[in-house]
Amino acid sequence: MSLLKSNTFISAHDVTDINALADKALHYKANPFIDKQLGENKRIGCLFLNPSMRTRLSTQIAAQNLGMEAIVFNVGSEGWQLEFEEDAIMNGKTVEHIKDAAPIFGKYFDILAIRTFPSLVNKEDDYSELYINQFIKYSGLPVVSLESATLHPLQSLTDVVTIKETYTPFNEGKRPKVVLTWAPHVKPLPQCVANSFAQWMNAWNEVDFVVTHPKDYELDKQFTGNAPIIYDQNEALKDADYVYVKNWSTYNDYGKIYNSDPEWMLTPEKLQLTNNAKVMHCLPVRRNVELSGAVLDGPNSIVTQEAGNRVWAAQAVLSELLQLQ
Amino acid sequence: MSLLKSNTFISAHDVTDINALADKALHYKANPFIDKQLGENKRIGCLFLNPSMRTRLSTQIAAQNLGMEAIVFNVGSEGWQLEFEEDAIMNGKTVEHIKDAAPIFGKYFDILAIRTFPSLVNKEDDYSELYINQFIKYSGLPVVSLESATLHPLQSLTDVVTIKETYTPFNEGKRPKVVLTWAPHVKPLPQCVANSFAQWMNAWNEVDFVVTHPKDYELDKQFTGNAPIIYDQNEALKDADYVYVKNWSTYNDYGKIYNSDPEWMLTPEKLQLTNNAKVMHCLPVRRNVELSGAVLDGPNSIVTQEAGNRVWAAQAVLSELLQLQ
Amino acid sequence: MSLLKSNTFISAHDVTDINALADKALHYKANPFIDKQLGENKRIGCLFLNPSMRTRLSTQIAAQNLGMEAIVFNVGSEGWQLEFEEDAIMNGKTVEHIKDAAPIFGKYFDILAIRTFPSLVNKEDDYSELYINQFIKYSGLPVVSLESATLHPLQSLTDVVTIKETYTPFNEGKRPKVVLTWAPHVKPLPQCVANSFAQWMNAWNEVDFVVTHPKDYELDKQFTGNAPIIYDQNEALKDADYVYVKNWSTYNDYGKIYNSDPEWMLTPEKLQLTNNAKVMHCLPVRRNVELSGAVLDGPNSIVTQEAGNRVWAAQAVLSELLQLQ
Repeated sequence: MSLLKSNTFISAHDVTDINALADKALHYKANPFIDKQLGENKRIGCLFLNPSMRTRLSTQIAAQNLGMEAIVFNVGSEGWQLEFEEDAIMNGKTVEHIKDAAPIFGKYFDILAIRTFPSLVNKEDDYSELYINQFIKYSGLPVVSLESATLHPLQSLTDVVTIKETYTPFNEGKRPKVVLTWAPHVKPLPQCVANSFAQWMNAWNEVDFVVTHPKDYELDKQFTGNAPIIYDQNEALKDADYVYVKNWSTYNDYGKIYNSDPEWMLTPEKLQLTNNAKVMHCLPVRRNVELSGAVLDGPNSIVTQEAGNRVWAAQAVLSELLQLQ
Repeated sequence: MSLLKSNTFISAHDVTDINALADKALHYKANPFIDKQLGENKRIGCLFLNPSMRTRLSTQIAAQNLGMEAIVFNVGSEGWQLEFEEDAIMNGKTVEHIKDAAPIFGKYFDILAIRTFPSLVNKEDDYSELYINQFIKYSGLPVVSLESATLHPLQSLTDVVTIKETYTPFNEGKRPKVVLTWAPHVKPLPQCVANSFAQWMNAWNEVDFVVTHPKDYELDKQFTGNAPIIYDQNEALKDADYVYVKNWSTYNDYGKIYNSDPEWMLTPEKLQLTNNAKVMHCLPVRRNVELSGAVLDGPNSIVTQEAGNRVWAAQAVLSELLQLQ
Repeated sequence: MSLLKSNTFISAHDVTDINALADKALHYKANPFIDKQLGENKRIGCLFLNPSMRTRLSTQIAAQNLGMEAIVFNVGSEGWQLEFEEDAIMNGKTVEHIKDAAPIFGKYFDILAIRTFPSLVNKEDDYSELYINQFIKYSGLPVVSLESATLHPLQSLTDVVTIKETYTPFNEGKRPKVVLTWAPHVKPLPQCVANSFAQWMNAWNEVDFVVTHPKDYELDKQFTGNAPIIYDQNEALKDADYVYVKNWSTYNDYGKIYNSDPEWMLTPEKLQLTNNAKVMHCLPVRRNVELSGAVLDGPNSIVTQEAGNRVWAAQAVLSELLQLQ
């Protein structure tokens, strides 16, 4: 039975059994090439409307491990600007309409993996996932999100995998306390990683999940759900088993920076409050702004292991999509 | 017997039998991986001096279908500016002379696929195909044009394939009426696609070919040949079975825009004049400037099928070149 | 027994037997695909912090010849700017610290090939190889230099291979006279290629090696060693069997251009002074600035053969690294 509800992977809600999908990723970690026949003569197009390092490399590697050809295309720098407005009179800067470009990808590829991005200006467009939904609609292909305007599901599946892999008391029926904490940054960033992590923690439902951030940094309720929101970071960190550090810009008054208080940076002192918590971050991380170098270089950080797991999460998802075909 | 006269593919005149080459493309469409052994341990270098999406992806895929390694190199953004002037004293912006660069490609690749472009300023240089001819001369390799200064042969072979595939009365010995119509655009564009389509329609000689454009947009006679040139678009469209829409800048007074009359945009009303014509375009297309969205979204448009066929046209040509080696 | 002392290849000193490694390269030139099983399910990451053509293509091809997957990543244009300062507070333009990025490459690849570059401003940083050493330290991977701040070992191994391949009197126990000559240029260039060529000629110790350049262009003594430094180019060229032409900026007063005297350009007249010397250059070359077009187009130039040999040098080194794993 498929672990995906359909042939798209853009949110936790596309997964029928998160635990089983994470187990599949760990199975590939132990046996990277076991399904190398599965993708024979299949081709994945990896389209980037925004730069990427880990996501690009891990997806390309996951595809190769499954025997697929992976073709990377940086739409902006290698191609041209796409138009997404339905009835645009295209006499400006956009060179090709998504309605014309996407069906071509449908002819060239078996699976489409795509990174779009939020404007951080037009909340309605961003939160309706205007871009990636048009790729899904017009390409007619299985689509994997490599981060969209509001979510980053391969990152979040990776995070589930990494928590499963490192929290041994799961065997005794215990639930770790997992804290998502806001961190300072120098630029207004998307809410994607935070939204997505919250969505997956809630959907997975194997951890006690808590969110902490400064006032007015509330995330969209559809993702945080019933998770306690605590404005006092120190209180939230108490007894945490995992601290997931991430900056995001404001959601309500959309795309703003209200706070750059360095007190919110995760330091070794703050880690003392936790239950010797493991520290996670999706990377890239601004050292000594979001997280102190001492934490990143210390024994609690599992960010490298986490980033390494990106390959196996992607491989599990691609494998499922290949089996649907 | 080879379907190519030599080991270059830059014009219709390089083909011995256009019908047979188009049939070969359709054969690959039905059996993409049938010749996967042919390109084993062969390598194609795909060099882009200009951005590309369909051409790049379709060539790369065609090569992979034949079992070749395809290496894409964006000369401008990944490398540096090449010099093409014979005795240049290179103390300016150009970093490497074509006479030094091209022979290296000859050492690294088995086939060279290359996209150059016209200046649209120096007609003599452009129409002598200064750039691609130097690649041919100095690389010593089989060379496939991925669009040159004046022609786009893989696009035109694709167009032949697409007409063959969709015009069933060929079986009854009938000839479709094929109209190449100029369309408005916001930028001065090359004449390549129009030149090339005219050249191939004439060389193929299985269709009744007509060209329509505003006065002073005449193309080079060497390509349009004896095709009727009609300045009244409505008259030209009458009873057409295929309408090929494309903008080009002026050829005689070189590289100019004389006309941006929106009346030349292809609309559903204009389609009424035709014999329920199929509509073609090489893409990318400026919606509601060259072609109305209603035409592109309607049942007469075959632009997606056409773009999909780019793979099979490229595969047929690469296959011929591999068999010459 | 390995021809490398460890799992890094960044200098002549990493090689146990230069002759044997060059022979291995020539063996691959005769039998490109003989070791295609060696790299099965192995992956090389080729990271470029600076643009590259020959180095990129030849490394990618060498890897493919050995059956490896090669993934090219242009760090600047496809990713973002890396931070190399140990305790940086990253509130500026750099997006990711090498301490965080490099370990991820360690998770994704089996071998890391990397091109860094010198600042030509901070001599101490450059000559301590700050960048590449941090990739080595933090990635935990076998690392191949694709040119670093001060050296270009794959180029120099290629140069050894090319001299071995073309100098037949080696069989009679003779030693060719090899002259490294400075040439004019329009920009301040790194000393890498010159440093590296000198280092390898000295370490190889099968040639009579001489360096000629204008006063004040002395290279670092650690590389030129006991080679005679001659300020009179004509004197140096006398009876040369090989002339290696290269520009570099000043080393002592770091990164400057003191001289652009066109008299230092290598011309057919100057070649008359030599023993019908073969002419080498790493390319790209500024025609009629560094070398006259007549020399490059003439029978003495072996620059194309030399550039072609880049593949085999890279293949020999990658093969050794694969066998260490």
